Amino acid sequence: MADWQKISGGITAPKGYRAAGIRAGLKPSGLPDLALIVSDVPAIAAGVFTTSHVCAAPVQYCRERLQAKANAQAILCNAGQANAATGAQGWTTVLDQAQLVGDALNLPPESVFVASTGVIGKPIPLDKIRTALPTLIDQLTDSGSDAAAQAIMTTDLVPKAIALEADFDGHPIRIGGIAKGSGMIHPNMATMLAFVTCDAAVSPHLWQEMVSRASDRSFNQITVDGDTSTNDTLLALANGQSRTPAIIDPGPIAERLEAMLTDVCMYLAKSIARDGEGATCLLEIQVQGANDDASAREIARTVAGSMLFKSAVFGRDPNWGRIAAAVGRAGVYFDQNNLSIQLGDILMMEQGQPLNFDRAAANAYLVQQAQRANQSESGQSVSHPVVIQISIGQGGGQGIAWGCDLSYEYVKINAEYTT
Amino acid sequence: MADWQKISGGITAPKGYRAAGIRAGLKPSGLPDLALIVSDVPAIAAGVFTTSHVCAAPVQYCRERLQAKANAQAILCNAGQANAATGAQGWTTVLDQAQLVGDALNLPPESVFVASTGVIGKPIPLDKIRTALPTLIDQLTDSGSDAAAQAIMTTDLVPKAIALEADFDGHPIRIGGIAKGSGMIHPNMATMLAFVTCDAAVSPHLWQEMVSRASDRSFNQITVDGDTSTNDTLLALANGQSRTPAIIDPGPIAERLEAMLTDVCMYLAKSIARDGEGATCLLEIQVQGANDDASAREIARTVAGSMLFKSAVFGRDPNWGRIAAAVGRAGVYFDQNNLSIQLGDILMMEQGQPLNFDRAAANAYLVQQAQRANQSESGQSVSHPVVIQISIGQGGGQGIAWGCDLSYEYVKINAEYTT
Repeated sequence: MADWQKISGGITAPKGYRAAGIRAGLKPSGLPDLALIVSDVPAIAAGVFTTSHVCAAPVQYCRERLQAKANAQAILCNAGQANAATGAQGWTTVLDQAQLVGDALNLPPESVFVASTGVIGKPIPLDKIRTALPTLIDQLTDSGSDAAAQAIMTTDLVPKAIALEADFDGHPIRIGGIAKGSGMIHPNMATMLAFVTCDAAVSPHLWQEMVSRASDRSFNQITVDGDTSTNDTLLALANGQSRTPAIIDPGPIAERLEAMLTDVCMYLAKSIARDGEGATCLLEIQVQGANDDASAREIARTVAGSMLFKSAVFGRDPNWGRIAAAVGRAGVYFDQNNLSIQLGDILMMEQGQPLNFDRAAANAYLVQQAQRANQSESGQSVSHPVVIQISIGQGGGQGIAWGCDLSYEYVKINAEYTT
Repeated sequence: MADWQKISGGITAPKGYRAAGIRAGLKPSGLPDLALIVSDVPAIAAGVFTTSHVCAAPVQYCRERLQAKANAQAILCNAGQANAATGAQGWTTVLDQAQLVGDALNLPPESVFVASTGVIGKPIPLDKIRTALPTLIDQLTDSGSDAAAQAIMTTDLVPKAIALEADFDGHPIRIGGIAKGSGMIHPNMATMLAFVTCDAAVSPHLWQEMVSRASDRSFNQITVDGDTSTNDTLLALANGQSRTPAIIDPGPIAERLEAMLTDVCMYLAKSIARDGEGATCLLEIQVQGANDDASAREIARTVAGSMLFKSAVFGRDPNWGRIAAAVGRAGVYFDQNNLSIQLGDILMMEQGQPLNFDRAAANAYLVQQAQRANQSESGQSVSHPVVIQISIGQGGGQGIAWGCDLSYEYVKINAEYTT
């Protein structure tokens, strides 16, 4: 059981962080589109970025900054233009963005990180950012998480934020996070952005390791449509303002902080999957019995990404054959006579043999989970996933992935003529 | 230029083959569902099968047969039940199918190959096959290709068949093929089946090599939804009834036969992609400038399979950003400053720089190709693909992949509640 508690405040819940989000006129819709996150003091920074060989200028920029020094004090994020496939001009723009923020906050530009999401191939109107910046900085506050979470959204239906607090030897450490997901901004592409703040003091190398592992178990385990973005970015800051003892080496304290960090990332990841374009429910695929965790995760991801299975779930069809087929093509060897598949608490296949399960009950489970997921306040609860349990053998490897169903709405959102 | 001609006759165009297809009552629809292909003499056999670790009993059976001896004289194929995920019973059924056909044709059961497509996890009603077999054999004819092509269909809209003839030193050699594609049979899954007949005499090892390479350049380069089937099967027979000199070794003659075989496979593969569930047009992705052909093919496949790009094509949206993003995530390294993308004859990105192309013309091209593809006699022409040309550098590696757009109809076909 987790021995921490959920608190309000998102990325400004941890001590020593302020944030803001405003309308800068970058989105045609006129919605908020420029966010700034600032730490009171230089923070240890870690990042995980898209694996795409076509990556946006801000991704290249952040990678280079992190390689030079694992330190950051501010993150500027705009929505509206992705600054991807923008050639040499795109690179100049990201340098200018960092310079503008650095000048305004009296920080070295190297300590300003930049992220973008939106249309590919369109330049960011830098003058609009220049104009908006004084207001943005003026609105920085230690309760600014919600405004920032709103400003990084594209076609997300709801903002995504969480904060956790745990007691470390009598002193609280807090981790907060915001994310945007698999919304598409016309006319281009989905991007996953996540920003995490932490007020613990952690050594740079350890923090990067923690962030990478947490990302592997969360953001790398969600899929909406399999289309890795040019801009995917997770940036995580640790600023030491909790005044708790610095966490330098691996050990129980570091493990506990990492577990808490992973929880933050998993919540954000699930929120992104749940808010996948056109989604009506959240899928949670649990795999066990693999030789190692990586194999189990790969199978879970493959099932979560199967268009056939996703379509079946949208139709509330307990189509276990499509699950079996997806498991088989994941690239992980196993003996199909060991394959068992369960939907909710209904066993559908056991040790390679199909069972005569209650199809009406299985259908009812799918209907019910989708209803529950949509009855929450936001209509976007992650508390009622459709759970698939898969076992492929006797190994100790396990993994979980999250996804969503495939609906007419997905096609509609992405087929609409927009250029 | 290919120095062979298209002829009619499909798999019964080559000498020494007969085929039939009838209604055996395996499909709930009552449509033809049982096909038989027979060579007058034992033929050299080669096969390529699904890479899925969950594979159907007939796939396991054919693999074992080919490993034991590269010889076959008959292929029985049913549509309606996939005989996949059927446990021990499935294995018994496939042995019984081969035995029944062997007994009826007075052939050793080892020379009878079996393929299935349809619902996963449901047993094949063997009694219906037993009952239908005398009629099926009675209808075997050297013009039976069409009947067989019809009987292997699931939700395919049109049967898929081709035959080519070339002159080898004054004597004709013929290759024919039929295939079924990415239709889904309720309530389960898409399967690709292809059967190729050839009347040349080819040594077993050489024939398998030719078939494997041809498959790599055709069937392995199409994607409808990325869901590899449990039953995917290509079986190719070479029976020597052309009476042309046996082709034993690699060389110009073998290369020419392989090119012709590849042409047959490519035509069938394109037909399958064009007839992808819900598709309104065929996509042809041409990639050049890679370090090797395999890398180029991988990129082409990734673009052809991108849900975002497929949705955009359905919306007739010349969304090159989604193409660039898909190229980037294919897992092949390249310098994004070398990336060029062209739609039809409209250059959209050159050497990493986005161009101000004529968007109306690009949209018109997409509209026009879809119209042309649907104006043909069958409504399923493969002659007017939407062509995307991608260059990633100066390397000599090139590759092509085919796919189709993603429409509401795809979701409808696969979401319908059916169990």
